[in-house]
Amino acid sequence: MTIDLKSWESYRVEPGKRIRLKQIPAGATDFCGDKATARATVKKYRKQIDELVSVLAMEERRSLLVVLQGVDASGKDGAVRRIFTGVNPQHCRVISFKEPNREERAHDYLWRIYRSAPAKGELRVFNRSQYEDVLVPRAHGKMSAKEMHIRLRQIAEMERSWTESGIAIRKFFLHISRKEQGSRFQKRLNDPEKHWKVQESDFADRKLWPKFQQAYEAVLSRTSTDYAPWYAVPADHKWYRDVVIAGAVLGTLRAMRPRRPMPRLDSKLYQL
Amino acid sequence: MTIDLKSWESYRVEPGKRIRLKQIPAGATDFCGDKATARATVKKYRKQIDELVSVLAMEERRSLLVVLQGVDASGKDGAVRRIFTGVNPQHCRVISFKEPNREERAHDYLWRIYRSAPAKGELRVFNRSQYEDVLVPRAHGKMSAKEMHIRLRQIAEMERSWTESGIAIRKFFLHISRKEQGSRFQKRLNDPEKHWKVQESDFADRKLWPKFQQAYEAVLSRTSTDYAPWYAVPADHKWYRDVVIAGAVLGTLRAMRPRRPMPRLDSKLYQL
Repeated sequence: MTIDLKSWESYRVEPGKRIRLKQIPAGATDFCGDKATARATVKKYRKQIDELVSVLAMEERRSLLVVLQGVDASGKDGAVRRIFTGVNPQHCRVISFKEPNREERAHDYLWRIYRSAPAKGELRVFNRSQYEDVLVPRAHGKMSAKEMHIRLRQIAEMERSWTESGIAIRKFFLHISRKEQGSRFQKRLNDPEKHWKVQESDFADRKLWPKFQQAYEAVLSRTSTDYAPWYAVPADHKWYRDVVIAGAVLGTLRAMRPRRPMPRLDSKLYQL
Repeated sequence: MTIDLKSWESYRVEPGKRIRLKQIPAGATDFCGDKATARATVKKYRKQIDELVSVLAMEERRSLLVVLQGVDASGKDGAVRRIFTGVNPQHCRVISFKEPNREERAHDYLWRIYRSAPAKGELRVFNRSQYEDVLVPRAHGKMSAKEMHIRLRQIAEMERSWTESGIAIRKFFLHISRKEQGSRFQKRLNDPEKHWKVQESDFADRKLWPKFQQAYEAVLSRTSTDYAPWYAVPADHKWYRDVVIAGAVLGTLRAMRPRRPMPRLDSKLYQL
């Protein structure tokens, strides 16, 4: 069975549309209901992603930025591991944005993001991103709606500027249900190998679940653009999450049509 | 057939020993004479490298730096692709050092190297390295033996300092014969997909072959230390080159014995 690569585009958030997360099923598996098929498809996609990225690197003119966002335990690290392990790390770099450090806090919130912009010829993955600096203060009640809207406009403008410079941008919101988050926390607590991952702030943020969902709704509704679209990815099933993201990334790379550079020498003059 | 992981250590350059590259066969395949077995072994090693690096990343205390050096067409890019494609790029970063740019030239030659030091918990690969700034000027006749010796001492001191900070360092010289380099250049010229890789400087440096070999002999003889050893890797056979490097990297990671961190919370207090 072959899945039409365009299927994954149906998770795009339409620009300008007001989104309600409660209406989007986190457990959906619309285009591939079978775990084994999904895993095999991801493997196939990954190989093609690696091949296209290697040509993108030779071309050295454009790049692809993949943004991953989602609440704690939504599977950002897992998605990176499943989708991008198998892409040549010479051409693929993952940046994990943590809480801003002192130097970063001494600048505006986009300073560290700009410093981390992808280089030409690169696939770059942001594990958390510029949106953290809207989502976290907003959910914690430390940012007014007006301040949030200003930042979201600034971010959209930065993304347009980057796009104009040859950076393709695709943003993925890993949508899980509150129930699924609870069960993932519980599993980590019960598993000695994963216990260390759990920290107090996870539980604090879980209590703010509705606030975070509202903040995400504002982000998705206001910053999904034609040039830098959001995808609302059903992420309760890890294997489905992976196939959606990998499919959308592959579709983007295919549409970019990277090409090998032209020869630099006249080979007749340089025989050995 | 299982190859003893310690075999690959036999390519280590003994500290303080004067090395003669002409006496080292570039076409050797001592511990694995069969291409298919070598490729399968690299795959197996790679999976284990990925697993150990993921624990190193959780531990977040130490890191591993792999340095790749060799003349043009010696296979540095190929080695990166074959060995590290399959390691989670969230924990593995490849830095390709090009000719120093204006800002880098405005500082001492180690400035950009220090800025690129591996972060804790990371596998970092230097595709070319601090040694370029000795090898190139020396082979081009722009650096005296005395100046070279000063830089090699400085580099060895930096590497000791890094080791003391928890960075394990392993350095690989990809040793190919002049004949093999010629045949690789020729293949690239004949192949429309690879033609673009060839540039004039490749041919200019090829004319300086003996000078580069001498410079490498000085580097290997003077900077192979217990803490940051060089391996002289027979690299005429790509599949053998890969299995030697992958084996030495895996052996190093095993010896580091990375461990998962301890739990941060008392799980009894945080049941959901």
